[in-house]
Amino acid sequence: MNGKQAAGQKAIEEIREGQIIGLGTGSTVYYFLEALATKVADGFNVIGVATSQKTIKLANEWKIPMRTLSEVEKIDITIDGADEVDPQLNGIKGGGGALLYEKLVAKSSSRCIWIVDSAKTKKQLGAFPLPVEVIPFGWKYVRNYLSEKGYAPTLRLDTDGHPYVTDASHYILDLHLNTIVNPEALANELDHLTGVVEHGLFLGLTEKVIVGYPDGHTETLNQ
Amino acid sequence: MNGKQAAGQKAIEEIREGQIIGLGTGSTVYYFLEALATKVADGFNVIGVATSQKTIKLANEWKIPMRTLSEVEKIDITIDGADEVDPQLNGIKGGGGALLYEKLVAKSSSRCIWIVDSAKTKKQLGAFPLPVEVIPFGWKYVRNYLSEKGYAPTLRLDTDGHPYVTDASHYILDLHLNTIVNPEALANELDHLTGVVEHGLFLGLTEKVIVGYPDGHTETLNQ
Repeated sequence: MNGKQAAGQKAIEEIREGQIIGLGTGSTVYYFLEALATKVADGFNVIGVATSQKTIKLANEWKIPMRTLSEVEKIDITIDGADEVDPQLNGIKGGGGALLYEKLVAKSSSRCIWIVDSAKTKKQLGAFPLPVEVIPFGWKYVRNYLSEKGYAPTLRLDTDGHPYVTDASHYILDLHLNTIVNPEALANELDHLTGVVEHGLFLGLTEKVIVGYPDGHTETLNQ
Repeated sequence: MNGKQAAGQKAIEEIREGQIIGLGTGSTVYYFLEALATKVADGFNVIGVATSQKTIKLANEWKIPMRTLSEVEKIDITIDGADEVDPQLNGIKGGGGALLYEKLVAKSSSRCIWIVDSAKTKKQLGAFPLPVEVIPFGWKYVRNYLSEKGYAPTLRLDTDGHPYVTDASHYILDLHLNTIVNPEALANELDHLTGVVEHGLFLGLTEKVIVGYPDGHTETLNQ
């Protein structure tokens, strides 16, 4: 047992028979999917909506029935990870590169719950680099703007040294901010910037965070 | 001679030797490109940056030297069309589907000049459907939101009846608004909407509009 596993398994208690479930992306969500697959194998009836190709692949292997976001009217509950969470339950997501689809699924969900290990809880956001998904055609324009603002952007690369390409065929600039004093103001600025598709600030989107600890116990933070 | 041709040819007077020129998209820009190609054939030295695959194709046929937006530091001047222009020189663009790259090129330009025929000038924007470029993964979420707001969105289709796909692999929702009372407020709302990549409201981006009339004369509107 580790913190990720503890949080992932605990989240199963939130799921009800017949629900349409947004399925996040990442190493903590992996444990939730594993637990969900066990219930599905026992006849538990749910439908999943994935936030990434990685999650679709896992869900298919584990025989969780899946639909795309466009194929469902709405999502009942979404279980996703986060790279950092502050005491107001605002967070940074996108370390795994799936921020755009994760935010679209979160916005389409009646409820959203994050599962994290205890190392992800912070007093203030910003130590984790903030991902900004950008249009490849204009990435240098956006990079130059963000550099001039002092946000220290770096183009995310894949293991071959080429630009990392998201599931939606965009690039990612990671902003090295150290601390984000005013997340709302920064989100607003990034929303208005031409060439930015989405950013990893998830503000006011989750109602509950399940925190897993290395000893296997969990804590729940509510909004 | 028609209004489009008059405006397109007049814009050549704005170009100086050695400039990097943003090249818009559409039937009025066609006449500008034709006139520019004639000068290039005579030895006039410029570099073009295109806003669409259509414009790249034309520029290549006409042997205008081209670079991508990422290959240049900045653009000296951009010549582009518009679907509607109001007296404040705000406009709607994107009827041809190139709004995203057009806005990125405009934002990267020191100067931006629009060329339109006289039918495009309006007292108020909104009779022309406002294009909104959206992420295919989440287009229904965005469509539902915009419908609830009363913006009457329709998914743009290609001639085969499939969703029209932009050069950046997104969809377009056209908003049927009739009149846009407050363009800044609408632009702000669309900027914040997850799943919206860009919209066709170009506010405060152009300093001059060259209007061509059917009899071949032109008028210039300055900010």
